[in-house]
Amino acid sequence: MTLYMIGLGLGSAKDITLRGLEAIKKSDYVYLENYTSTLPASRETLEKFYGKEILLATRDLVEKNADEIIEAAKKKNVCFLVVGDVFGATTHTDLYLCAKKKKVEVELIHNASIINAVSATGLELYKFGKTTSIVFEEEGWFPNTPYEVLESNQKHNLHTLFLLDIKISEPSKEDLLKENNKPQLSRYMSIRQAIEILFKLEKKHKKKLIKKDTMMVGVARLTQPEQKIVYAKAKTLLETSLGGPLHCLIIPGKLHFVEEEFLEQFQK
Amino acid sequence: MTLYMIGLGLGSAKDITLRGLEAIKKSDYVYLENYTSTLPASRETLEKFYGKEILLATRDLVEKNADEIIEAAKKKNVCFLVVGDVFGATTHTDLYLCAKKKKVEVELIHNASIINAVSATGLELYKFGKTTSIVFEEEGWFPNTPYEVLESNQKHNLHTLFLLDIKISEPSKEDLLKENNKPQLSRYMSIRQAIEILFKLEKKHKKKLIKKDTMMVGVARLTQPEQKIVYAKAKTLLETSLGGPLHCLIIPGKLHFVEEEFLEQFQK
Repeated sequence: MTLYMIGLGLGSAKDITLRGLEAIKKSDYVYLENYTSTLPASRETLEKFYGKEILLATRDLVEKNADEIIEAAKKKNVCFLVVGDVFGATTHTDLYLCAKKKKVEVELIHNASIINAVSATGLELYKFGKTTSIVFEEEGWFPNTPYEVLESNQKHNLHTLFLLDIKISEPSKEDLLKENNKPQLSRYMSIRQAIEILFKLEKKHKKKLIKKDTMMVGVARLTQPEQKIVYAKAKTLLETSLGGPLHCLIIPGKLHFVEEEFLEQFQK
Repeated sequence: MTLYMIGLGLGSAKDITLRGLEAIKKSDYVYLENYTSTLPASRETLEKFYGKEILLATRDLVEKNADEIIEAAKKKNVCFLVVGDVFGATTHTDLYLCAKKKKVEVELIHNASIINAVSATGLELYKFGKTTSIVFEEEGWFPNTPYEVLESNQKHNLHTLFLLDIKISEPSKEDLLKENNKPQLSRYMSIRQAIEILFKLEKKHKKKLIKKDTMMVGVARLTQPEQKIVYAKAKTLLETSLGGPLHCLIIPGKLHFVEEEFLEQFQK
């Protein structure tokens, strides 16, 4: 039998491909990856839409008990649904490799991911440099990576896409130390929080990469009907609420005039 | 009315999203972009599958006569279908901007593109640097760009994705000078041809970026049932036929051990 790893796209239940939906229809178990991203459709909505029961796959299940999914796929067709595209998070390549090791057939069904859908800003995909993440500050954990990646991309006039942290129903580090697996509330980093962190990094490294008037692109709920894109100075974006999750942030490199014209419609 | 710009994905007619298919069903005119990429499904197959007549949109139509599409979208729902995702080629942002200028509503419906589907190789998307293209040599046209981009990405241990040239039913430069618009035959660059060009660039610049034993990933017909991925030394790939189009090529940067393990299954 087959393990279908299926990207759901970003916007709604209807963003699944026909190929993906066909795979769900012929599967006995349908897992929904529930911790690296989120779809603006509830589990119930998806169940109704697919006509199938959905099992939520927590980080724990996927990282520690992947065997449950893989064993099932030895005898039955199993779907593993991922918001965006299939391999956004390393964890999923692990699942793929484990399945392959156990001689389980794996089929990948791709979809849009944040990596290519950011082209909705009008910025050319081939002009993006390395992608990086901005994570919530935790005791003793304040990585310099986003600043370093930005520096390197800017040197080559490339755009930088910052993915913003998501904490979905996960135990905190403190809870883990206390062996308490009770999840904290879900948290999504906003564009404002991300810019605040970038300014802290600027204060630390002082390379003048991020100034109050650095032009940035804030992107909220990409591909959803309530999608919002704002192109503005950092200081303006800091005072702008872009509403509910998910957010991401782009600091453009050198702009082509068509990119500039495209961004104008989002300017604030 | 609305101009729907819809990504078709890469693999087959069934890679369209439900949202995309719904837009086609409610449209009066359906254009298929026919010159920056190609789907392994004929126009007839797609027409049958969508239950709609398809108008082929040549480069000429989109670049010079976009008005035809935009005028239609003033009165009727119009779809503009693009293989992969919507904004792979700059030309399509032009169409979007023209439509917006004429107060035509535009809706983007995203899908997988080569930019994110290359994750099927197991290489992490966030570790790719700038993407670049390798084009067919023409009289006086032998760009250094792929070599320069590779150099910069390698310096930062990043993976480099090379998109390979496609010439679909386009008049050649010579023909254009003679004002002859008769199209030459379609041509698709193979991985072998791409590597030959990279070696020519190496011979010219001599920075030892590309050697006979440089490990590369050849990717053919990504996401199609006949998908083929080969991970091998340049000299081995030069002697390997990966079959029909489309091809692309990756020179990996520094590999994480999970990436290495993933690539092993494709090693030759």
